[in-house]
Amino acid sequence: MEDLYLKQIHSPQDLKKLNEEQLEELAKEIREELIETVSKTGGHLASNLGVVELTIALHKVFRSPEDKIVWDVGHQTYVHKLLTGRYDRFSSLRTEGGISGFSRPSESEHDMFYSGHSSTSVSAALGIAEGNKLKGNKNYAIAVIGDGAFTGGMVYEALNNAGRSGTRLIVILNNNEMSISKNVGAVAKYLAVIRSKPSYFRLKERTENFLNRIPLIGKKCAKAIFNLKTHIKNLIYSSTMFEQFGFRYMGPIDGHNIQQLCDALEGAKEAKKPVLLHIHTIKGKGYDFAEKAPAAFHGVSEFDINTGEPIFSDDNFSKEFGTFLAEMAAKDRRICAITAAMSLGTGLAVFQKKYPERLFDVGIAEEHAVTFCSGLAKAGMLPVFAVYSSFLQRAYDQIVHDGALQGQKIILAVDRAGFVGEDGETHQGILDVPFLNTIPDITIFSPATYSELRANFVKAFYHMDGLVAIRYPRGAEKELPNDFHFSDKTFDIYGDPALDIAVLAYGREFAFACEAKSILASKGISFKIVKLNQIKPIDLKIYEQLLNCRAVFFFEESEKNGSVGEVIGASLCNRGFRGIYHQIAVPNEFVCHAGVASQLHRYHLDVNGMIEEIQGVWNEIS
Amino acid sequence: MEDLYLKQIHSPQDLKKLNEEQLEELAKEIREELIETVSKTGGHLASNLGVVELTIALHKVFRSPEDKIVWDVGHQTYVHKLLTGRYDRFSSLRTEGGISGFSRPSESEHDMFYSGHSSTSVSAALGIAEGNKLKGNKNYAIAVIGDGAFTGGMVYEALNNAGRSGTRLIVILNNNEMSISKNVGAVAKYLAVIRSKPSYFRLKERTENFLNRIPLIGKKCAKAIFNLKTHIKNLIYSSTMFEQFGFRYMGPIDGHNIQQLCDALEGAKEAKKPVLLHIHTIKGKGYDFAEKAPAAFHGVSEFDINTGEPIFSDDNFSKEFGTFLAEMAAKDRRICAITAAMSLGTGLAVFQKKYPERLFDVGIAEEHAVTFCSGLAKAGMLPVFAVYSSFLQRAYDQIVHDGALQGQKIILAVDRAGFVGEDGETHQGILDVPFLNTIPDITIFSPATYSELRANFVKAFYHMDGLVAIRYPRGAEKELPNDFHFSDKTFDIYGDPALDIAVLAYGREFAFACEAKSILASKGISFKIVKLNQIKPIDLKIYEQLLNCRAVFFFEESEKNGSVGEVIGASLCNRGFRGIYHQIAVPNEFVCHAGVASQLHRYHLDVNGMIEEIQGVWNEIS
Repeated sequence: MEDLYLKQIHSPQDLKKLNEEQLEELAKEIREELIETVSKTGGHLASNLGVVELTIALHKVFRSPEDKIVWDVGHQTYVHKLLTGRYDRFSSLRTEGGISGFSRPSESEHDMFYSGHSSTSVSAALGIAEGNKLKGNKNYAIAVIGDGAFTGGMVYEALNNAGRSGTRLIVILNNNEMSISKNVGAVAKYLAVIRSKPSYFRLKERTENFLNRIPLIGKKCAKAIFNLKTHIKNLIYSSTMFEQFGFRYMGPIDGHNIQQLCDALEGAKEAKKPVLLHIHTIKGKGYDFAEKAPAAFHGVSEFDINTGEPIFSDDNFSKEFGTFLAEMAAKDRRICAITAAMSLGTGLAVFQKKYPERLFDVGIAEEHAVTFCSGLAKAGMLPVFAVYSSFLQRAYDQIVHDGALQGQKIILAVDRAGFVGEDGETHQGILDVPFLNTIPDITIFSPATYSELRANFVKAFYHMDGLVAIRYPRGAEKELPNDFHFSDKTFDIYGDPALDIAVLAYGREFAFACEAKSILASKGISFKIVKLNQIKPIDLKIYEQLLNCRAVFFFEESEKNGSVGEVIGASLCNRGFRGIYHQIAVPNEFVCHAGVASQLHRYHLDVNGMIEEIQGVWNEIS
Repeated sequence: MEDLYLKQIHSPQDLKKLNEEQLEELAKEIREELIETVSKTGGHLASNLGVVELTIALHKVFRSPEDKIVWDVGHQTYVHKLLTGRYDRFSSLRTEGGISGFSRPSESEHDMFYSGHSSTSVSAALGIAEGNKLKGNKNYAIAVIGDGAFTGGMVYEALNNAGRSGTRLIVILNNNEMSISKNVGAVAKYLAVIRSKPSYFRLKERTENFLNRIPLIGKKCAKAIFNLKTHIKNLIYSSTMFEQFGFRYMGPIDGHNIQQLCDALEGAKEAKKPVLLHIHTIKGKGYDFAEKAPAAFHGVSEFDINTGEPIFSDDNFSKEFGTFLAEMAAKDRRICAITAAMSLGTGLAVFQKKYPERLFDVGIAEEHAVTFCSGLAKAGMLPVFAVYSSFLQRAYDQIVHDGALQGQKIILAVDRAGFVGEDGETHQGILDVPFLNTIPDITIFSPATYSELRANFVKAFYHMDGLVAIRYPRGAEKELPNDFHFSDKTFDIYGDPALDIAVLAYGREFAFACEAKSILASKGISFKIVKLNQIKPIDLKIYEQLLNCRAVFFFEESEKNGSVGEVIGASLCNRGFRGIYHQIAVPNEFVCHAGVASQLHRYHLDVNGMIEEIQGVWNEIS
């Protein structure tokens, strides 16, 4: 189908000219565009399909960017991007130099925050609202947040503040019953009750029949009717949780009915205090495969539109981890798996199926997850928290205070450690080494292969005390040379230990180093590789391998400040090292979206980069 | 008064033998002991005075340590300590080698977790409860948490999980209307409503009159009566917030009536699902001065029992910061101050009084605080979040994701940076440099004096972009030599720049270094001091001062991994430095309670330590 309306929308202004019927057409065009593009680029499909009508209604009713729409976890902003001047570039979604898969202020004045982590929007929007109030500015601040993000505690901190303040703020709770996986917890259940109370629906039907008979005479009347409807509903649900938090509750509203949404938003504008507008949407709406399996279509790789099947299917560290953990759990009944709404992404699907009573999906609640693990450990269990590196950031204090300090056995299975590619700066896993490095009494492993991953877990379960983090990258293991043998000690030497040039590496960098070694050997440049198996604490014996070297290289897929390379560099300096120390890591900056290979290349952390760096120093010293 | 009962209590077992009247006497003895001891040692008084009866009732009804009582923020465990075998040592409270001011598993099997940060208890207790369930163990898990801690989002994450699980868990909500300061937010208001509904009290009175007429025949009857009471109350409050979270709500109960508490706890034991027991206490109960000013008596220094006045009163960085910020706010209406329930501790009392509309006390909600600042900045304000170093840990992800990444101006006023003394391992401010160091696009200052503090703020407000952290220690500024002049550049040299021995320092270490310099000069040892004014990013010009040195020392009051000393050490190594690099910082370990001077001394970070370290190296090289 040719896009008739979508291509005419260069800014939200253009949207305001369309009538109800045209907006419905626009919604169809947007859905086709979303499915078409994401099938080629990969990305977040299901959540965007769910907010098509909501986004249209928001831009119809509000004046962005004066009115500030804050999208929680910016992966649900594809529709917003299409309506705010980025239709022409939409096919470049998530590609290097193209538009981002998340909201991004540098891309458009309509994007308020770089946003990739969940549950932040109400806090940010409340800040805007309070700022507006202090400045005497009448613009609106709107937070759009899913019920999944409502499992994150920050939201309650924000509600607690907003509700007491009495400040004008509109929170739109997009209730689709999903986090990334099926939503969990008491609040999800509570929302389902509000939504489905039969008494409500019976009354609603009668009321609507009555209300529908009243002719719609202009906006004012529509607003009045809407307010009446809301009032009747509120009588039914005399006191919702949100009212206890000091909000005015409006809803539930059909989130796929543009007119009803517009009426509701107009109603919300009238309130002189914080409003929570509860809308109901279907995640994946309009694409059968996604509606049926919204979790699978939350974040997807390229897929075949006609079958919904991914074009590539891969082995990867997540799957290996999940399979192995389920095997271990069969033998040891103390092993529990904890996930923060990511059982699919972290590879725990098998575990969940086999040992549901030992799988705890806590919602998007990383803080709680870590402290909960501490309680499980206290009761004699062996908790494993599987989490993406970038999201583990949120539990820094809990890792310090409720994890490491307690000296109990908790295992952090840190997935997506290192560059993550297309998701960009909010999702990079290049801070976990630096921030975990700061914490006393933690052991960190960073395996290069699946078999090393398994060995790390066995060691962590049965041969270590305290908190252990095992971190592994997105994607599959790399092949290692046949003559390398993993020892399961703190480090291994690959190459002649007597050589006076050393290359330090761990994780997937080790495979690159092996390849560089083989290529450079043919050019007469020889070195040993010191493969770190345990990256914290550093075994002091390692300095025996380094102190007499002419040159020591460290290639590390981590942000540099606080990296292992810095620990070792400072220590070499403290120990009177007299050779050249050449440390390659990611400088202290945010790394935006591109392919993983491209990101590795940019920072000289791939094979070619290594060769270039080593050769450069070699030319100096020989 | 001679302790009659308290001295007989060597474990909770001994408590169980006492009758109602004796328990009342015991409560009196405990209060006297608390006031007496804390007046000498300093510590957390008001919260402990509030939980005397509750703690007695808990140990009367439950079997600790099989039943696990998890105290939120362990500073409210003094009474618990007195009842679990630590009466004899109680006078050593908070002193080096003495008993800790927080719960501490290494001290007693009755202490479940090292606990000093708020809002973690429900998560931890739920972990224990789930572990017990998996193991088929029937013991109880009990969380005791104040309404202050209920402003922290982690609690809702935990409630959301507990409520849905149906697992047996007892949460005791100790409602005293205070965080550290007066409690804030919608939930506090909501709790006040539940507590004070007049209809309830009228009914309660009538019911109680009726119930009191029923003779108490053994425990069973008491339980039945309690359940009846609860049932009646529940009918009145048909659906509380806690019931929406899937809990059974019981309360409100008078938290100073031991018998009523015991009945309530017995009732809670019967439930087959999570229970929230809402009790009402008076913070500071039994000591007039503390009842009248519970915030002032939250954490106190030594004081005069008869007047309630502190024995020492000090100028300090917090006060200077607060005074200066209020001055700045008079001139610039964009300046806002944000605090996480610590307006007193962080010195914001003056600001709060003068500019209440620009002072945001968000509750114990550091995560929200940072993201809220980001929203304020988006609306054109200049937000300053004043927070203790140790509590800022909780907002690590928000500083990364909602702070630094957005590139907006937010100022973190990081108080209690460095050793904090008697509060011990959960409160040390020795991680903020390492964890802030990992984050791109942050500037960090660490002033040595009040005037430098003021200069840092002016620079941050008007001459810099992005996120700025200004960190300063507990206590007062140290005197600096008259011939030192602060330049407001990134670093200053004190001493002859041509000297080839350099000592790096910042913050209060600079004053110590000056003193060491003067003492060592008399022994013929001369060096220059490179005083870092801006500790991140490091001005590369600094290496010109260091690279040709024979020896470079760095004395840093920070955990070592990720410290500035490590950044500079690794960089020196990368730059081919050939001298001696001698870095003194806190090794990667938790530092327990003692005086600040003693902590500085332990790690060679005081004047004597510096002299010793410098002399040692001097003897090697000369």
